[in-house]
Amino acid sequence: MQATLLYGERDIRFEDRSEPTIVAGSDAIIRLPFTCICGSDLWPYRGIQAVQSPTAMGHEYCGFVEEVGPSVTSVKPGQFVIGSFFASDNTCPHCRHGYQTSCQHRELVGGAQAPRIRVPLADGTLVATRDLPDGDMLPSLLALSDVMGTGWFAADAANVKPGATVVVVGDGAVGLLGVLSAKQMGAERIIAMSRHESRQNLAREFGATDIVTERGDEGVERIRQLTKGVGADSVLECVGTQESMMQAIKATRPGGSVGYVGVPHGVSLDGEQLFFSHVHLHGGPAPVRQYLPKLIDLVFNGIINPGKVFDLVLPLDQVAEGYRAMDERRAIKTLLRP
Amino acid sequence: MQATLLYGERDIRFEDRSEPTIVAGSDAIIRLPFTCICGSDLWPYRGIQAVQSPTAMGHEYCGFVEEVGPSVTSVKPGQFVIGSFFASDNTCPHCRHGYQTSCQHRELVGGAQAPRIRVPLADGTLVATRDLPDGDMLPSLLALSDVMGTGWFAADAANVKPGATVVVVGDGAVGLLGVLSAKQMGAERIIAMSRHESRQNLAREFGATDIVTERGDEGVERIRQLTKGVGADSVLECVGTQESMMQAIKATRPGGSVGYVGVPHGVSLDGEQLFFSHVHLHGGPAPVRQYLPKLIDLVFNGIINPGKVFDLVLPLDQVAEGYRAMDERRAIKTLLRP
Repeated sequence: MQATLLYGERDIRFEDRSEPTIVAGSDAIIRLPFTCICGSDLWPYRGIQAVQSPTAMGHEYCGFVEEVGPSVTSVKPGQFVIGSFFASDNTCPHCRHGYQTSCQHRELVGGAQAPRIRVPLADGTLVATRDLPDGDMLPSLLALSDVMGTGWFAADAANVKPGATVVVVGDGAVGLLGVLSAKQMGAERIIAMSRHESRQNLAREFGATDIVTERGDEGVERIRQLTKGVGADSVLECVGTQESMMQAIKATRPGGSVGYVGVPHGVSLDGEQLFFSHVHLHGGPAPVRQYLPKLIDLVFNGIINPGKVFDLVLPLDQVAEGYRAMDERRAIKTLLRP
Repeated sequence: MQATLLYGERDIRFEDRSEPTIVAGSDAIIRLPFTCICGSDLWPYRGIQAVQSPTAMGHEYCGFVEEVGPSVTSVKPGQFVIGSFFASDNTCPHCRHGYQTSCQHRELVGGAQAPRIRVPLADGTLVATRDLPDGDMLPSLLALSDVMGTGWFAADAANVKPGATVVVVGDGAVGLLGVLSAKQMGAERIIAMSRHESRQNLAREFGATDIVTERGDEGVERIRQLTKGVGADSVLECVGTQESMMQAIKATRPGGSVGYVGVPHGVSLDGEQLFFSHVHLHGGPAPVRQYLPKLIDLVFNGIINPGKVFDLVLPLDQVAEGYRAMDERRAIKTLLRP
């Protein structure tokens, strides 16, 4: 088969790679009707996170089980399944507490920008849908694998409650789906921080009630004005830079919560400043596995449609153009058809 | 009257100062049957936090109302009251959320190492006891003003639940009362990190089930062993140094919580490390006012006796010796008799 490899900064190649095969008895092989590019793929693509050797890209996946290892009991060939970017056994103490991305036996799933992948720890990792999904549901189900689950975790970590005032920092796919998640959790006011019209429109469609275009301390000042000097109950940090993190902390009221899911790059927090901010801080790699059953139900019941974040669809062999479009912010998120 | 002033590093003087008087209509004047020295007073005493001019010391207080300003309605002369080191109106949005130490009108209360003090915002700040307390109850009531309320907040911020495994970093008065608080909240296992025998004994009396004498990464390794490689559900950070903060974060299981109440001095947190630790982080100046009614009940009903942290009693005019004893760790906490 042909698959996507990153050779170095902005050097994406689509080339021959061997078909995935069952390596451990707990593996499954999945055929992917669609795949996609993640905002976090742009960190290595831009050279901010160096790659040592050609790296198989892609970690978001859903699709049809083609083959399972001899020890797999919970999924079988023919089923449609979704999993997370971290494979997990779903039985260790961390998994039982709902933190499957810190599973004691976790393994990164890679190489999903391809027609097929191998998923380790299939029993713990994969969740099968109740029926085979319709084709038009596939983008939304694919979004659950990472961006929707991550947006949901951001809102959950930020302790969004019915009636809350919520701020979302970051207008990438995760931030936009953080808006959708906050709406689902009953937030009354959702302030999206965005300066791109197409993203503002999608934020409004997902439930944003206000848009703030200012950034940094100006953005914080604007949030203060909008909240009568109090600050927000819950702030979702969906970027991962020093500026976005400080923007999130400063926009939160004392006793409020910051949920941060942007992988921090060069972020350093001053202990004393954090102390006097009085905020709750929680985040990390989203334990998507925890949320999959609920989110699959929401998609099957037509209540959420997170697939709307895909605003560019390309054949898989044009994956390099998909990266370019996201890098240049011409696309929010690229869907790829193997 | 004579009161306590800090002139510079390790330069405590007890000298003439004018009697406090009503300045604003919302003030109250309180006569203090006892007063005390706080672990946090040692930061400026040791010169780690410079003082620009002679500073009136002491911020923990309870006592008899002697006089109130014309707008005060909730307390009256003759009542016994307790307040926190931050005066608060108890009506602003932050107060209503239970974060009175971030009150929009907060004022630091100072000069409590004296026979009398002025407390601003008396209606919002002071809580009267139901009856006048017996004399032997006074040390415990005084402890509520800061160290007990702060230990309670550490446990609350660390989300201690019945059955939890809890670690307490720091064996000062706040850490010891963090042990007591975790016990009250139903923790099953409480691991106190301490290398001083008298403090270990008090920790055990307050409810500690295990003592760990190692510090830093060795201490973390010991916690891992004691928790079968999982880490603690809740960790109370009651020191405020880089080492103690990292010790707390690393001792917590993914999804667990760190409650930090040691005022951070030179602490810097790496965003990426915090992200992958998957911990909840919450802390700040303890909103003691929130907890006072409950804690007063616990003392009046004989359920807790936080006054046990006072292991040295001196006449107020020997306050300088009280500081020296705490600085040299000869005393956990000094009680002073005006």
